[in-house]
Amino acid sequence: MFPKNTWYVACTPDEIADGPLGRQICGEKIAFFRGPEGKVAAVEDFCPHRGAALSLGKVVDGKLVCGYHGLAMGCNGKVVSMPGQRVGGFPGVRSFPVEERYGFIWVWPGDPALADASKIHHLEWAVNPEWAYGGGLYHINCEYRLMIDNLMDLTHETYVHGSSIGQKEIDEAPVATRIEGEEVITERFMENIMAPPFWRLALRGNDLPDDVPVDRWQICRFTAPSHVLIEVGVALAGKGGYHADPRFKVSSIVVDFITPETETSHWYFWGMARNFKPHDAALTASIREGQGKIFGEDMEVLERQQKNLESYPERKLLMLNIDAGGVQSRRILAKMVAKEQAPNAA
Amino acid sequence: MFPKNTWYVACTPDEIADGPLGRQICGEKIAFFRGPEGKVAAVEDFCPHRGAALSLGKVVDGKLVCGYHGLAMGCNGKVVSMPGQRVGGFPGVRSFPVEERYGFIWVWPGDPALADASKIHHLEWAVNPEWAYGGGLYHINCEYRLMIDNLMDLTHETYVHGSSIGQKEIDEAPVATRIEGEEVITERFMENIMAPPFWRLALRGNDLPDDVPVDRWQICRFTAPSHVLIEVGVALAGKGGYHADPRFKVSSIVVDFITPETETSHWYFWGMARNFKPHDAALTASIREGQGKIFGEDMEVLERQQKNLESYPERKLLMLNIDAGGVQSRRILAKMVAKEQAPNAA
Amino acid sequence: MFPKNTWYVACTPDEIADGPLGRQICGEKIAFFRGPEGKVAAVEDFCPHRGAALSLGKVVDGKLVCGYHGLAMGCNGKVVSMPGQRVGGFPGVRSFPVEERYGFIWVWPGDPALADASKIHHLEWAVNPEWAYGGGLYHINCEYRLMIDNLMDLTHETYVHGSSIGQKEIDEAPVATRIEGEEVITERFMENIMAPPFWRLALRGNDLPDDVPVDRWQICRFTAPSHVLIEVGVALAGKGGYHADPRFKVSSIVVDFITPETETSHWYFWGMARNFKPHDAALTASIREGQGKIFGEDMEVLERQQKNLESYPERKLLMLNIDAGGVQSRRILAKMVAKEQAPNAA
Repeated sequence: MFPKNTWYVACTPDEIADGPLGRQICGEKIAFFRGPEGKVAAVEDFCPHRGAALSLGKVVDGKLVCGYHGLAMGCNGKVVSMPGQRVGGFPGVRSFPVEERYGFIWVWPGDPALADASKIHHLEWAVNPEWAYGGGLYHINCEYRLMIDNLMDLTHETYVHGSSIGQKEIDEAPVATRIEGEEVITERFMENIMAPPFWRLALRGNDLPDDVPVDRWQICRFTAPSHVLIEVGVALAGKGGYHADPRFKVSSIVVDFITPETETSHWYFWGMARNFKPHDAALTASIREGQGKIFGEDMEVLERQQKNLESYPERKLLMLNIDAGGVQSRRILAKMVAKEQAPNAA
Repeated sequence: MFPKNTWYVACTPDEIADGPLGRQICGEKIAFFRGPEGKVAAVEDFCPHRGAALSLGKVVDGKLVCGYHGLAMGCNGKVVSMPGQRVGGFPGVRSFPVEERYGFIWVWPGDPALADASKIHHLEWAVNPEWAYGGGLYHINCEYRLMIDNLMDLTHETYVHGSSIGQKEIDEAPVATRIEGEEVITERFMENIMAPPFWRLALRGNDLPDDVPVDRWQICRFTAPSHVLIEVGVALAGKGGYHADPRFKVSSIVVDFITPETETSHWYFWGMARNFKPHDAALTASIREGQGKIFGEDMEVLERQQKNLESYPERKLLMLNIDAGGVQSRRILAKMVAKEQAPNAA
Repeated sequence: MFPKNTWYVACTPDEIADGPLGRQICGEKIAFFRGPEGKVAAVEDFCPHRGAALSLGKVVDGKLVCGYHGLAMGCNGKVVSMPGQRVGGFPGVRSFPVEERYGFIWVWPGDPALADASKIHHLEWAVNPEWAYGGGLYHINCEYRLMIDNLMDLTHETYVHGSSIGQKEIDEAPVATRIEGEEVITERFMENIMAPPFWRLALRGNDLPDDVPVDRWQICRFTAPSHVLIEVGVALAGKGGYHADPRFKVSSIVVDFITPETETSHWYFWGMARNFKPHDAALTASIREGQGKIFGEDMEVLERQQKNLESYPERKLLMLNIDAGGVQSRRILAKMVAKEQAPNAA
């Protein structure tokens, strides 16, 4: 249950730096590689000669050369050449619209005629030199919507991430969810509290005291199909909170790109963008390491949840106020899928 | 194919000492934990909020607190509280009758209205200070009845456990099987033989000579649903065998609690109770280690047997005299299951 | 999709040297062992007593004794004895025609009445002392015909085995395929080229220069059901190529016996027979090691190809001139299978 006529993060440039990459996205097995002039390309991971996985091959002069018998595949899914063969009548494979932007490779797994690169959302933090970004990738055996739910309800931090970013006050603070066009926003503000360990580290990293009360905020933005960007931060208490002068706060954006692999698994691109000390590579590395551990804590919870839901398919889950972010996000996804599947969809 | 309106061993107290335990029993996914005043509790391993596995949570003040968003589950399967929520209308989950007795946690996976703690069989060796017990747990990928068959026909010792408790005389001694109420008893007596390695060790452990002939016995008792207690021992030859004065014999009870997990797998709680040198902890440990190795030898045989039976479902197996114990035990189980499934069962 | 009324390589003698071997062949689970006087035997790997795997047992006096309760199985699939039992009425299991020849154990998984040992093809290199043989066994998760395709189209060497036996000239040389009776022969000759690394090693091993041009040949012979023997070699250029005097060439036979396990997996017995320096055991070992690495390179390609074909069952594959060897081999196999399945087959 996922829309296909939309852009998903497929991989990062380092994953195709040394050769092609085979990755399944929305049920499509795709080989990603750098075509002519280094431009990224994506074709079905299936050699029309004998069905070998093209991603096991090599890139030669911008063509993806099958590692079995040397068929050379072009970026458009048409066969370019094969040793000793006339390839004019050879069947091709599907190619997929693909874009490299903001430090990610984006793929459109649905109808290529509908692909429009301008629909990739602008990511200011990815292009503004005052921001730094660090992140990673996890493969998770649960459907992608469970991860969206997870990120749109941060009360789980208190239970899953108690030693880093969780704190009792998250549960106690009221949460508000609203819809703005195709976005779902759920936010929570906590005033005059002590910062949890992760944020104390960030305060120190930004030369601020970590033993005084702070105001803390979490603003989760879902944008379809599966991006959750979360503005998070703490400011010294009483300085204006979210709106405080940069001298008194530490803030960043938790970046989550959630890409379906199959109906029951997904690729989770996680990271953090920050606009303080953007050139401090050691800080980027230490935040990345800490975040990797925190997000790893979610995996067992989510994969066991997936199994439970498969075991009890008839059970209705609760939809509480804290779940509103996930519930609204699912509604938008359901509409997108319904629209795609309508008879006159295109 | 297992009765559910009956008591099964679910786990041992050490398994819930540091937190909840998730375990599937008779197809039911169950979270075990210690409720108020340390009393053991068992509820479905499914959080009614979003389906997370409750067993990944923590026990707080006798409640099982979900590790995802903090829903607190009571011992009775009713939701006690959740941060920021009124839980009065929340659906609950099933709770299971559960008892702690004889050093084990017992669960009744069927109709709770029928559960009666007095039906847990008395285990004298577990309460009498003149006895010591040591044991362990194996997870085995075969249906539980294959393990019952295994334990009710000890001729397999000669082939599977040749280096410890097996000896040719087991095959040669006549075996007798009888039914006493709901018990199946199969027994074998061997006179004037040399003890195999395991029993020579036990003789020495009890300050008896290990190089003289002995009389050996094996009395297997099946009690439904899946307990096999085996009286085993050796006495110096001619001193009365099973009835010999304790000074001349070494005897113990092999304890086997066999709990179905699914139709094709089970939990095997194995151990040995002895009434000699009960306070010798080193002896307990060494017997436990030896027994663990011996019972590990059965696993490959049983798991391959399970696969063979699945591959050839139409083949009829033989039912020889040596198989009578298993055959009779299966009849009792079949009756129990038929009774449960009858229209007017309850 | 495999013929069963035919001889397949089942195992090598070393695999049954220390006890029975359980191996699935053409869907049949078979226990191989040495019966009376060391003669090889093959029976269903299923004990008629309780379904245990006979291959977990021991061979005693030419009988296969079940490792569970001691039933003794004869080479003909009839029960010989069991401790304390009269076995006259015991059901037996299937036995399979089996032959030991040419350093391999051959099995006939189909109708035993049709088995004829004279139909095992003569292998001159296996009986002639001027030849040496070294080889190994891989288990591969793809249907056996993909391996036949692989070996009947050696253009893959250029891509899969680029660092050992592959070279661009293979692609460029014309290939010719013909059928001779029940054999498919596909051959390729390359003249005045430089030898690739594997053959340079072989030239040096045979005291020939490795830095001068050579003529190279590859003659692949498929004989049903699944034997591919490939004559390969290089001769100093201009000395007659394949027909050159032995002083000027290095040649050998790549030996491939491909035995179906299930519809989607097979056992691959690979090796090389050579008629130079046949008594040089170190050379045999080094060729074997090199060949093992080369053939290991095919495994990932083939297993991924199998998965791709399962994912896209409706796609037609190309049948190019280079594929003719595999295509013709498949036709012969299809005829054999059709003949077996015809109503009046036997």
